[in-house]
Amino acid sequence: MQISKNNLPEKQNQIYDAIIVGGGAGGLSAGIYLQRYRLSSLIVDKGKARSFWMQELHNYLGLPPDTPGRVLLQKGKQHFLSLEGDLLNGYVEEVIDEGETFAVKIKFGRQNSSYPVFRAKYLIAASGIIDKLPMLDDMQNVYEYAGYNLHVCMICDGYEMIDKKCGLFVGSEANIQIITGLSWFTPKITVFTHGAFTVSEEVRSQLKSLGYPLIETPVKRFLGENHQMTGVELVDGKVIELETGLIAMGSHYHNTYLQGIPLEMQGNNIVTDKTGRTSHPRIFAIGDLKVGLNQVIIAAGDGALAATEIWRGIRRDIGAKPWVENLTKERV
Amino acid sequence: MQISKNNLPEKQNQIYDAIIVGGGAGGLSAGIYLQRYRLSSLIVDKGKARSFWMQELHNYLGLPPDTPGRVLLQKGKQHFLSLEGDLLNGYVEEVIDEGETFAVKIKFGRQNSSYPVFRAKYLIAASGIIDKLPMLDDMQNVYEYAGYNLHVCMICDGYEMIDKKCGLFVGSEANIQIITGLSWFTPKITVFTHGAFTVSEEVRSQLKSLGYPLIETPVKRFLGENHQMTGVELVDGKVIELETGLIAMGSHYHNTYLQGIPLEMQGNNIVTDKTGRTSHPRIFAIGDLKVGLNQVIIAAGDGALAATEIWRGIRRDIGAKPWVENLTKERV
Repeated sequence: MQISKNNLPEKQNQIYDAIIVGGGAGGLSAGIYLQRYRLSSLIVDKGKARSFWMQELHNYLGLPPDTPGRVLLQKGKQHFLSLEGDLLNGYVEEVIDEGETFAVKIKFGRQNSSYPVFRAKYLIAASGIIDKLPMLDDMQNVYEYAGYNLHVCMICDGYEMIDKKCGLFVGSEANIQIITGLSWFTPKITVFTHGAFTVSEEVRSQLKSLGYPLIETPVKRFLGENHQMTGVELVDGKVIELETGLIAMGSHYHNTYLQGIPLEMQGNNIVTDKTGRTSHPRIFAIGDLKVGLNQVIIAAGDGALAATEIWRGIRRDIGAKPWVENLTKERV
Repeated sequence: MQISKNNLPEKQNQIYDAIIVGGGAGGLSAGIYLQRYRLSSLIVDKGKARSFWMQELHNYLGLPPDTPGRVLLQKGKQHFLSLEGDLLNGYVEEVIDEGETFAVKIKFGRQNSSYPVFRAKYLIAASGIIDKLPMLDDMQNVYEYAGYNLHVCMICDGYEMIDKKCGLFVGSEANIQIITGLSWFTPKITVFTHGAFTVSEEVRSQLKSLGYPLIETPVKRFLGENHQMTGVELVDGKVIELETGLIAMGSHYHNTYLQGIPLEMQGNNIVTDKTGRTSHPRIFAIGDLKVGLNQVIIAAGDGALAATEIWRGIRRDIGAKPWVENLTKERV
């Protein structure tokens, strides 16, 4: 059920089989599987999974290719709630490993916040990442186009950019090297640094040899209408026409609640085995937090894998349950 | 496009980037990703993927939980064809490793069959498994209920069997040990061997101690109506009432076309890395053929992983493509 102020106290008294941090594709799929395994699960969702921003999921098997990400999330939440899963809109501040259980401290309510603690045997970290965006005076101007024809995922939306004049918005020199993949879809690339860093001579000459203009003057605003970006205006008033854009400025990782628990990492990503199990035997990481490809359909599969492994762990020690009625009959 | 007799000859002249054996969830997802990576792919589908038999997919994120498997497959085929993927209804007889390419020999057409050969740089084995079924004189009687309340996948449909009187149909003594998992959902288990093998004293006493009846008399037919199985009639005329059933007799693996290529195996399953790559660097195995959990949503994620790895392999050596127009301008 949806957890509200009213039923918060009673829900805090139980120990869940698993608490899932994040209600995106991975977390919802894990929750659906856990509930179907007759386990108890709580999803804590702060809202706005990365797929929430995607106006059209073009590559999710079974959904029409114009399905908005938020529709997938809505359907998944309904499905999870129909299986009697618990869903709490809140923000996980900290997870403490208590040995047999985890204590999960949550910030609940934006105003007059309370800080309830929930407990579970297993933890699934499914809180994902969010893309860094170009910081403009008017951020609403960025949101106007992001997820429409101003993309954040080359793997997802490269196909939509084929042979279009594309602005590549980067936050560091390392980000620029996405040109190798991006040019597979379109070589009409203009690189925008927003003046955020100095470009080395080596990279300057690389871009020049490829015919990719490099714009270091900061962007004032994106131009366009009806969510279709048509170019950018720079702070010096110059206008550059574009047909599409890719923001590749890196990601914020939603994993600060795990700081107190040492997990094997590879850069910012959590190392897992094929089932999503981290270096902590009762913590699973799925979707964009783990090492691997960031795709909605993969996160959904990850959820099934982690949930199944948790179910196996819980039932392993129990063994087969008898048909009690038959045993009683025989004894009579 | 759908390949027919008419366009068969022209299609045989090209070398595809990848040929995908099997048009189930894994193969279709791989095809959708490959086409969106601007690669050329051919799916060879013999029809009747395992999910085709599932009357309701209860655990696929984003689809209503009463979606028939065949609807998912139809939608996936439409999606793949809309991206200009090639689809051939046929049966892959043999794959020959020619070094740079694979030659894929196909049986095309049930009557007056022809045997065209297609070529590709990469091969994706996505042909899956199919469940062994109890062999009755009238097999139509089995198909009447299979996929409805006579299930073949405990992970998928355990939830539908909760606390119901369940017939467990096994083909070997080893199959019987699924009782540990099945009893998590329902302990009201009756084991049917169909007289196919001898049960050891050890297992007899295990079943007795759990209160699970063991029926060794062969089954004559399933009883019921409107696809709802209500019990079985044995060859001796005895009737056993049931509310649901699970067939756990093992699987046929659709992998004979790979016999000529040595691949690392684990039992009947192909060993892969996290991206689905087998011990052959240009062969990927996804879905139920590989080691791992057999689930539709996982197979769909597998397809995305394998396709992305193939794309990376193909573009790796090419590097960034220049914006030719800009280079020409400068030279003028």
